[in-house]
Amino acid sequence: MPTIVVDVMPKAELLDPQGKAVTGSLARLGHGKFQNVRIGKRIELTVDGEVTDEILAEAKQIADEVLSNQVIEDVVGIEVVE
Amino acid sequence: MPTIVVDVMPKAELLDPQGKAVTGSLARLGHGKFQNVRIGKRIELTVDGEVTDEILAEAKQIADEVLSNQVIEDVVGIEVVE
Repeated sequence: MPTIVVDVMPKAELLDPQGKAVTGSLARLGHGKFQNVRIGKRIELTVDGEVTDEILAEAKQIADEVLSNQVIEDVVGIEVVE
Repeated sequence: MPTIVVDVMPKAELLDPQGKAVTGSLARLGHGKFQNVRIGKRIELTVDGEVTDEILAEAKQIADEVLSNQVIEDVVGIEVVE
């Protein structure tokens, strides 16, 4: 069954406290070359049947209205896999 | 600056309560064609300079040991963007 993957990230202009904490942890563990860690969500939706343009448009609407909070997050990607 | 994206998902054989809740919400909102929602993490790491094979190997190690919990999660993708 095809899967639609929706990627949601905190807006670039907002502080990401969870990412900041991981950045600090990596530095303490000796992995300081990895900086500015940001943590978002990867959401997989399974669709029963073919993914038509209509279903993809509906997925985009869901991504904007249900799966993300437009005040603090951006939908950075929607793609069909399998 | 190049960014490494690490995708982490709950293991397929485990229940994902957050995903289950969203599946139920979508059904109630009339989007029942989207089923079996699973919610994972999308982690962006910024690297200062070129991403060599060595840095990518270190990122893979971090993904397995720090960014994911191997008991309940799988690293499903590591890719360099930009």
